[in-house]
Amino acid sequence: MNAEIIAVGSELLLGQITNTNARFISGQLSELGINVYYHTVVGDNVDRLVNAIKVAETRADLIIFSGGLGPTKDDLTKETIARHLGTVLEIDNYAMQSIEEFFTLQNRIMTDNNRKQALILKDCEVLINRHGMAPGMLLEKNNRIYMLLPGPPKELEPMFQFEAKPKLAARVNDGAQIVSHVLRFYGIGEAELEVKVQDLLENQINPTIAPLASDGEVTLRVTAKAYSLEQAEQLIAGAKDEILRRVGQFMYGENDDSLSSKTAKILIDNNLTIAAAESLTAGLFQSELAENPGISQSLIGGVVTYTEQAKREQLGISADLLENYGIVSSQCAVAMASKVKEKFGTDIGIGLTGAAGPEGHDNQPAGTVWIAVVIGDNEPQTYQLHLTGQRNTNRLRAVKRTFAFIIQLLTEQGYRK
Amino acid sequence: MNAEIIAVGSELLLGQITNTNARFISGQLSELGINVYYHTVVGDNVDRLVNAIKVAETRADLIIFSGGLGPTKDDLTKETIARHLGTVLEIDNYAMQSIEEFFTLQNRIMTDNNRKQALILKDCEVLINRHGMAPGMLLEKNNRIYMLLPGPPKELEPMFQFEAKPKLAARVNDGAQIVSHVLRFYGIGEAELEVKVQDLLENQINPTIAPLASDGEVTLRVTAKAYSLEQAEQLIAGAKDEILRRVGQFMYGENDDSLSSKTAKILIDNNLTIAAAESLTAGLFQSELAENPGISQSLIGGVVTYTEQAKREQLGISADLLENYGIVSSQCAVAMASKVKEKFGTDIGIGLTGAAGPEGHDNQPAGTVWIAVVIGDNEPQTYQLHLTGQRNTNRLRAVKRTFAFIIQLLTEQGYRK
Repeated sequence: MNAEIIAVGSELLLGQITNTNARFISGQLSELGINVYYHTVVGDNVDRLVNAIKVAETRADLIIFSGGLGPTKDDLTKETIARHLGTVLEIDNYAMQSIEEFFTLQNRIMTDNNRKQALILKDCEVLINRHGMAPGMLLEKNNRIYMLLPGPPKELEPMFQFEAKPKLAARVNDGAQIVSHVLRFYGIGEAELEVKVQDLLENQINPTIAPLASDGEVTLRVTAKAYSLEQAEQLIAGAKDEILRRVGQFMYGENDDSLSSKTAKILIDNNLTIAAAESLTAGLFQSELAENPGISQSLIGGVVTYTEQAKREQLGISADLLENYGIVSSQCAVAMASKVKEKFGTDIGIGLTGAAGPEGHDNQPAGTVWIAVVIGDNEPQTYQLHLTGQRNTNRLRAVKRTFAFIIQLLTEQGYRK
Repeated sequence: MNAEIIAVGSELLLGQITNTNARFISGQLSELGINVYYHTVVGDNVDRLVNAIKVAETRADLIIFSGGLGPTKDDLTKETIARHLGTVLEIDNYAMQSIEEFFTLQNRIMTDNNRKQALILKDCEVLINRHGMAPGMLLEKNNRIYMLLPGPPKELEPMFQFEAKPKLAARVNDGAQIVSHVLRFYGIGEAELEVKVQDLLENQINPTIAPLASDGEVTLRVTAKAYSLEQAEQLIAGAKDEILRRVGQFMYGENDDSLSSKTAKILIDNNLTIAAAESLTAGLFQSELAENPGISQSLIGGVVTYTEQAKREQLGISADLLENYGIVSSQCAVAMASKVKEKFGTDIGIGLTGAAGPEGHDNQPAGTVWIAVVIGDNEPQTYQLHLTGQRNTNRLRAVKRTFAFIIQLLTEQGYRK
């Protein structure tokens, strides 16, 4: 079975909202093993919607519509589909009752156009809407399935999960399970990663392996199909072993992990405390680390020393050091990390200094960043970056690299991951 | 001229990412008065991409592609379009040079597949990529415009705005100018705002007025069409006056302003310095303020005092105060603001304390936040929030409200906006 998702709504074509429904439905269909070959977005216009339906009928067995089931004149999805399929709309008594109850409950007068929401396609299976008024529909006709869902994600998502998905699963279920794992890499480019696993990407059929790059990170999605969960997990484990053998040193986590959550986990699991002194990132490192619940046992705090004066007065960095090596230097980063570690009495100290851009800073070009990490009594470790992005991309990249650097150093020192 | 946007990428059809590019491009085209009738998403598959192109050619004059210009084998947009249009790809020397420079600068080895990114369609106009390696393209053929843009939004958005949009504007210009101003509001809900300007929304034809809510802010987009820029601006000014008469007290800025950029502007323009002490936001306030170039003359720095101990030791807040009033209290917020102002010797001090969630903190429920602002020798001002979102939404909302509060207090004290 292959599917096309048609979102109906002029607000999508005007750029007022993003088509998050297509993403949600696609993710759900992928779990069922149903291929999605196209998404289409069309406005609230009968002729263009009919055109979109005709195109979809040439290339999909399952056509899922989102939007256009509401009470206003703009909402014309079901009317258009009924005409196109040569069928009619009928009142759904359960939906009508719910709509009337809703208005009674809200103490509001029901306008006539609300009745329109209780109309459904003749002979369809109703998908109950527990979070809104317009019911969804599933209609089989001419060897195709037409599914109509409401536009608001708060109504569509639970309706799909609890009403539509089981009906689809029953139709596609040949007993097979689809399982995906996402492997997360940092510090290796997409092209470089791909070269190293090229033969796996090309020759693997089950599991399949697909790369994706975003925001300085690369992921590999490993997807297996099998007749039991255990079998699917085994297939994935085999492919994962081979991938790790080749590029394991760049992998930092799986599935919902992020560099920040992984850092938080290592810190918390190993009872380590941390403090940071930030210049160009101005609190972004600490703020991203604080996104993780439970971090208050590890993140004690830190300082933002945005100016040279603040570095001297708040951290006690000597004017000599700043004079001799500059603000954007490994020496300054190390001093920041050591001083903040001492000041806050933590196990780990972080120092971040650099020129975010657009201007250079203290004779260093924009994009130059020094990161220092001091762990316990160990020798301070530094990392230099030459970033080429805009100011805020550079600040974010510097923070990501800091997390990756901490994970690497702690792992090397034997802390459990 | 009417347009169709084709996003190419299997990750979209698998539900791994959302098609935000289509939304961005649609918004931009709407400003040019170009109608968008369809969005299509298709995977990294030659046959299905050709099918999507053929369908688009039956219904659009301008076909904009996003994605599939990268270095890997999956990236096949330009190759497929070249074959479909019976043309070839050539090396773009400027792009090739940039790619080589990028690898030299990063001290990384350039793999062969990266060269692929420098290939462009013969006879196209090149759209320079200032934030990545793959150039964009614009090709006119058979009375149609084919535009190819890279997939990553950080590359696509500036390329569209600064390279592609002027070229399209020159082509659609019938002498009419479309001008839009976005008015930005904070502290008023969308429904409440809409009620106050309902008649304007309904009756205005030129300019049109459209509301949009996102992330605690509401905007009104005022769009005029006229045969001169001056005339368009006049039409907008008239509507704006009437809007401000009704809800002016909630407007904080226009167009690309953000609460953070507006705060930075007021601080810089009035030569004011600022420092912050942050608990639940853990540096997010300072980091967001630091997003604005030129802020180093105002933002001196600050402290993150995530733990109670850090509040005592780093800021010298008395154990008595913390004992008597609690960590999540107006007294603690005021002490944080006053102490950090003194410590950093600034004109303004900010204190942020609260319970981000998911757990409550120090007997206060999750979502309780206290903001304190101390300006010069004035009485400290506080603001309490009861937020209901998740941890990181709450942290972001607290920071936004802090910016709005600073803007309000400085404006009330006569600092120029």
